[in-house]
Amino acid sequence: MSDLEEPALLTIDLAAIVANYRLLAAQAPMAELAPAVKADAYGLGMAKVAPALAAAGARRFFVAWLAEGIALRALLPDAVIHVLNGLEPGRAGPYRAHRLIPCLDSLEAIREWVEGGGGPAVLHLDTGISRLGMPPEEWAALAKENGLRNRLELVLAMTHLACGDDAANPMNAAQRTAFLSAIDTLGLAGGRVPLSIAASSGIFLGPEYHLDLTRPGAALYGLPPLNGHPNPMRQVVRLQAKILQVRRVDSHMTVGYGATHRTTRPSRLATVSAGYADGLFRALGNRGHAYLGPVRVPVVGRVSMDLLTLDVTDAPPELARRGATIDLIGPHHSVDDLAGEAGTIGYEMLTALGRRYPRRYLDAGTAR
Amino acid sequence: MSDLEEPALLTIDLAAIVANYRLLAAQAPMAELAPAVKADAYGLGMAKVAPALAAAGARRFFVAWLAEGIALRALLPDAVIHVLNGLEPGRAGPYRAHRLIPCLDSLEAIREWVEGGGGPAVLHLDTGISRLGMPPEEWAALAKENGLRNRLELVLAMTHLACGDDAANPMNAAQRTAFLSAIDTLGLAGGRVPLSIAASSGIFLGPEYHLDLTRPGAALYGLPPLNGHPNPMRQVVRLQAKILQVRRVDSHMTVGYGATHRTTRPSRLATVSAGYADGLFRALGNRGHAYLGPVRVPVVGRVSMDLLTLDVTDAPPELARRGATIDLIGPHHSVDDLAGEAGTIGYEMLTALGRRYPRRYLDAGTAR
Repeated sequence: MSDLEEPALLTIDLAAIVANYRLLAAQAPMAELAPAVKADAYGLGMAKVAPALAAAGARRFFVAWLAEGIALRALLPDAVIHVLNGLEPGRAGPYRAHRLIPCLDSLEAIREWVEGGGGPAVLHLDTGISRLGMPPEEWAALAKENGLRNRLELVLAMTHLACGDDAANPMNAAQRTAFLSAIDTLGLAGGRVPLSIAASSGIFLGPEYHLDLTRPGAALYGLPPLNGHPNPMRQVVRLQAKILQVRRVDSHMTVGYGATHRTTRPSRLATVSAGYADGLFRALGNRGHAYLGPVRVPVVGRVSMDLLTLDVTDAPPELARRGATIDLIGPHHSVDDLAGEAGTIGYEMLTALGRRYPRRYLDAGTAR
Repeated sequence: MSDLEEPALLTIDLAAIVANYRLLAAQAPMAELAPAVKADAYGLGMAKVAPALAAAGARRFFVAWLAEGIALRALLPDAVIHVLNGLEPGRAGPYRAHRLIPCLDSLEAIREWVEGGGGPAVLHLDTGISRLGMPPEEWAALAKENGLRNRLELVLAMTHLACGDDAANPMNAAQRTAFLSAIDTLGLAGGRVPLSIAASSGIFLGPEYHLDLTRPGAALYGLPPLNGHPNPMRQVVRLQAKILQVRRVDSHMTVGYGATHRTTRPSRLATVSAGYADGLFRALGNRGHAYLGPVRVPVVGRVSMDLLTLDVTDAPPELARRGATIDLIGPHHSVDDLAGEAGTIGYEMLTALGRRYPRRYLDAGTAR
């Protein structure tokens, strides 16, 4: 492996994202696939990711914030853009100015949207996650308010699963049933409005969850859609860092802040130029791993803001040298592997990936 | 409190940073104070923070990466800039081109620097953190290499404490003794080279740790320098978010992904527009708190990527309404409070603060 020029490098494989898009589309062939590119495309850079997905055929996208929608509109003048976090109170004007479609989640928001001039909207129903979405007690009220409902120009009705990544969880079917029943109550059944339940996980719960539209995020970016199942998605990111210094230490030497690690044998320690300010969570201290070529090397001591230290005693000295490159995320060690070592999930790891190291994008057109 | 225009807002008080600079300078009046502005000034924005500190009198700064040094040079053409992570292998050219001073941490790095043309340098000795810094077995070798040592144009010699935030830890005095002994061995004692041990914590360990130069980071940004002692620093950041939706739910309703929270009474839940993609660690799920005015409200369920949900049952309904503003970090709830709820430290919380919400800087010239 050639040495890095920069102290650390994040490589994002746009071709892998497009391959994942195609795999998901094939898995739910009757539904439109509308990628979620919120949170800067899960930390990977919406400005690169969204155009690559549009070139692959995506026409409709989900963001979380109004500001993200405005940024996406500038990138994709013709895309259909839905704002998941709803109608930000008092901000209907900018939605309309940028042709952004709010996911309306309450009677209050519906009234604000309709009375301010209306326009295309998504109806977001809560069927059990109790987070965003219109709660059941408002469904009946909306059903009765014919005037309001008739002025709603719905382009989609959606709900969101609380436990979609757990295929055996009975809550999935219960949420689906509640959703379809609400659609019926609201007079929206029979193809009058397109319907959506599935994000990444839902696509793998079976065709009854696909309906008219799916809205995957995580799986596009390589994360496993279902717990306890093999991951069918292609890995998208690689995170490498450079060894700044290798030191030999005796037994019983302490390492790092708080002296939380003590060597038990004469050891070689490598310090690399990435730390928790780069998204390598402090929780990886004495728990995380990296790879030096094919050799798994443990994080020792606490992770610092700008540095972490690895025990490279078991790696060949020709690999463990100043200037050599280690993989924090790479062929042997997925985003989810590293996230698991930090006690969290790949989603959080991706969105935490830092801004300090340079990013290299592998072109979506590049076959490999 | 007036409602926010944006869904969330990070306010950074430059006047508080300058007040902290002055407090630290008064605490170590015989030493030069050289701020650490690495990791984008601990996440707060080096482009705003460094000029404010320079205007307050700082002339010398510490960054971690070469690239940070280059960015700082563009901001402050006349500053003295030290790069803590040392001489990145093979990159001496850009250090010289931008007048950046590496903190040399090994014989190998010293040779590379001197043989490539030399120039001002910092000598970084490791006295027990085993992270970066020249290890003891190399001190003697350097002491013997008169030729090499004499060609080193040292502007500072430094070490870094492993347990500086723990005033009672005997490792502090041991590291200080080892450092001064190394300086003696290397023939650098007696004022021939300025010396530095103290970062933020070291400033509060007593004058024997101040020496010629201190290099605080955390305390400038409002974090407490010593564990178990009152925090003398002024709070620098405030993080507010807007309530997107308030819902009433019955007892026994589940909340969020994985349905990890279940209400035990009829409740009101508020969902706000900030999540782990904004640096609100997933570890805050069912453990964190926010403030709605003066009322402490707990995070319920898991934190999502773009959202979190609070139990606002105990807050007056006129405060807990769509569009109202909550404080995640604010007058009642410090960075360290929130970090503690997530099982980490304020340093990690600060550097994780998101890029999605707008940032407002309170001017350093504004008295308050």
